Amino acid sequence: MEEEVIEKVKELIEQKDSDMVKELLIDLHPADIAELCNELSPEEARFVYLLLDNELAADVLIEMDEDVRKEFLDLLPPEIIAKRFLDYMDTDDAVELIREMDEDKQEEVLSHIEDIEQAGDIVDLLKYDEDTAGGLMGTEMVVVNENWSMPECLKEMRQQAEEMDEIYYVYVVDDDERLKGVFPLKKMITSPSVSKVRHVMKKDPISVHVNTPIEEVVQTIEKYDLVAIPVVDSIGRLVGRITVDDVMDEVREQAERDYQLASGLSQDVETHDNVARQTTARLPWLLIGMIGGIGNSMILGNFDETFATHPEMALYIPLIGGTGGNVGTQSSAIVVQGLANSSLEVEETFKQVGKESVVALINATLISLLVYIYNFIRFGGAATVTYSVSISLFAVVMFASIFGTLVPMTLEKMKIDPAIATGPFISITNDIIGMMLYMSITVLLS
Amino acid sequence: MEEEVIEKVKELIEQKDSDMVKELLIDLHPADIAELCNELSPEEARFVYLLLDNELAADVLIEMDEDVRKEFLDLLPPEIIAKRFLDYMDTDDAVELIREMDEDKQEEVLSHIEDIEQAGDIVDLLKYDEDTAGGLMGTEMVVVNENWSMPECLKEMRQQAEEMDEIYYVYVVDDDERLKGVFPLKKMITSPSVSKVRHVMKKDPISVHVNTPIEEVVQTIEKYDLVAIPVVDSIGRLVGRITVDDVMDEVREQAERDYQLASGLSQDVETHDNVARQTTARLPWLLIGMIGGIGNSMILGNFDETFATHPEMALYIPLIGGTGGNVGTQSSAIVVQGLANSSLEVEETFKQVGKESVVALINATLISLLVYIYNFIRFGGAATVTYSVSISLFAVVMFASIFGTLVPMTLEKMKIDPAIATGPFISITNDIIGMMLYMSITVLLS
Repeated sequence: MEEEVIEKVKELIEQKDSDMVKELLIDLHPADIAELCNELSPEEARFVYLLLDNELAADVLIEMDEDVRKEFLDLLPPEIIAKRFLDYMDTDDAVELIREMDEDKQEEVLSHIEDIEQAGDIVDLLKYDEDTAGGLMGTEMVVVNENWSMPECLKEMRQQAEEMDEIYYVYVVDDDERLKGVFPLKKMITSPSVSKVRHVMKKDPISVHVNTPIEEVVQTIEKYDLVAIPVVDSIGRLVGRITVDDVMDEVREQAERDYQLASGLSQDVETHDNVARQTTARLPWLLIGMIGGIGNSMILGNFDETFATHPEMALYIPLIGGTGGNVGTQSSAIVVQGLANSSLEVEETFKQVGKESVVALINATLISLLVYIYNFIRFGGAATVTYSVSISLFAVVMFASIFGTLVPMTLEKMKIDPAIATGPFISITNDIIGMMLYMSITVLLS
Repeated sequence: MEEEVIEKVKELIEQKDSDMVKELLIDLHPADIAELCNELSPEEARFVYLLLDNELAADVLIEMDEDVRKEFLDLLPPEIIAKRFLDYMDTDDAVELIREMDEDKQEEVLSHIEDIEQAGDIVDLLKYDEDTAGGLMGTEMVVVNENWSMPECLKEMRQQAEEMDEIYYVYVVDDDERLKGVFPLKKMITSPSVSKVRHVMKKDPISVHVNTPIEEVVQTIEKYDLVAIPVVDSIGRLVGRITVDDVMDEVREQAERDYQLASGLSQDVETHDNVARQTTARLPWLLIGMIGGIGNSMILGNFDETFATHPEMALYIPLIGGTGGNVGTQSSAIVVQGLANSSLEVEETFKQVGKESVVALINATLISLLVYIYNFIRFGGAATVTYSVSISLFAVVMFASIFGTLVPMTLEKMKIDPAIATGPFISITNDIIGMMLYMSITVLLS
């Protein structure tokens, strides 16, 4: 969205020139209008909103940034939200919207939806856990009976499809509404009209259970290159479908979450967020890092005699700490990513630690050897620092690799997001343990 | 894929029991057969392959892991690759496959494709840059003329669609093949048969140019919730389409790449990769970290008198270095993510640095104050360490925030991937600069 357009709209809103604003909006896609609204104040956005017809207003609302939408909805009475938006939305979008409200408002909004079938579907969908297929699915889909002929099917489909934006698959059920098959919409056009649905459909379609975790839904859609996936309940009845656009949002969100956790940001934060949010997202790990640093100073404090007699020991503190941090981050990142894309299972912990140890052994040997050569030239072979730094480095690399592997694996086993074990957690922990190893080895050797 | 199934297949292959293997495969989805092949040796995979019919073999091949596929294709003569796979593949998949081969093999494989139209399309597609819309698109799509009636259109579509797996949109062109409109396949069924195509279609469809960078294609598909997007050339002619499954792979790959760069892994590496690859992916940053650490020891070496007289100064080396690393990582991660999802533009550098400075000021004040209180209690207000640590911390947090913002912004401006400025790069640099600040401030104050 260009700056000029936004400025133009703001100006027109100030002049209360509804006609001109309407004219500007008429050719825009809902996603573009949403982008525009993200840049406006809630009051300005409200002005734009009241110019849109219901269908379009609903489409725009669901494309808006979550926080802008929240502010905006706070300005509107529940009745308007229900009648102007929820009645015109796909059920999965409506559920997403309702989940963002507090419970009192939820109840009130639901009671104002005029289309009883729509309201019933939404209430049913709200029962599912947000992180499962049931929580992400919608009920808009074309469903036909396996015993119908293709012409019957076509007729029925014309009715069902009237209200839907886009359709990719036709789902086939038996008389008890159990999912039996699927066929792409294209078959409706290319298949001879005499055929029965059951002869056209692909049997045993790929589907997910209402309780399937979202990560698994994402993997299934990605693996089989689907644009939508049917959702069934415990007795195999078709209860909804999940579309690829929702799944793509999930992929993006999860990747951003993992990245943020690995970078020491404790909540979802963007460049456009205000200073208060930016600060609170960063402070937790900075404070933990500070406590870690003070802890480190206490550990090192026990060895100040060592520093007084061997001041050169202090020179390698950054090297030992930094290497531990780097190695640990690498190991834990590989594990977290492997767990996220299912190429690694919790059952493989032992195997992964074994492999990691071999890699660590090679890296540790190489690095400590290089540093040994350097120190040999700088301080000579007899100096404590020469061998104690290299032995410590070796120990730190070995420890950090195994620790960086074990921690996320253990968290996964405990059903805690392993991504929290990356980034500052690993570097702070390895920093402290690295110092303990370094000091202990130095004292032992001198 | 379950271990038992894999073991069973391996056993059957050893016994050369083609019939039983075939029976096991018959109900599997191509993506599942590919997953199975990923677990087999190239020779075993070859045995499985020769049992599949051409269509299925092509589908399986494109779903395989890139490195497994490479090994496997090396076993096959170019003629077989052309006739058994490329002839049966979507053009975008065929291009992906051919790009993985070296140039000599590419030429030879292309010369063996029997379907001349297919070969021509592939050769044309290979001309586009891999990172643009042209490099990702395929030519399989249903195209109709704007002047046709819906029944004409239906007839033509039946022919075109016969060979295609799945169709979501129908693209409309004028007599000069310029893209004029689009309509979802559903309209084919719900629109009255008397209408002309031009009255059914949506005008000015969202499209991308052949030279549009892939990141922008991804953003467009995500923003408008499309399942496919048409690609046009410089004079607006429709030349191809990109489907959402390819885009989703891109989202996943890019997120993994950014994550790996931020974690100090210099190449794409997975838990299942062998030890050599694991080691080479990690060593570069570990060696750079080592050089950084040695550099740090040289800087600190100039101050060993300071450590001899004030051994307590050494205690805070980890705190100063660690805080600089943490702050820098946070700042650069926010910038990299903002640039990746286009919520931040290079032109906003000045604004972003300003905002970052305010956030840094709050964090710096808070952390240095807390550490000051701690040190006041531990060492007293008169000790050099008490104020020099806090002043240094303040300076380090301010510097690291601004540096962590400026570096990725500058890289983006220079068209270099800003993600390389995250992770070890930022922490090593901030570690060194932090030490210089700490030592300079200490010498100035004592």
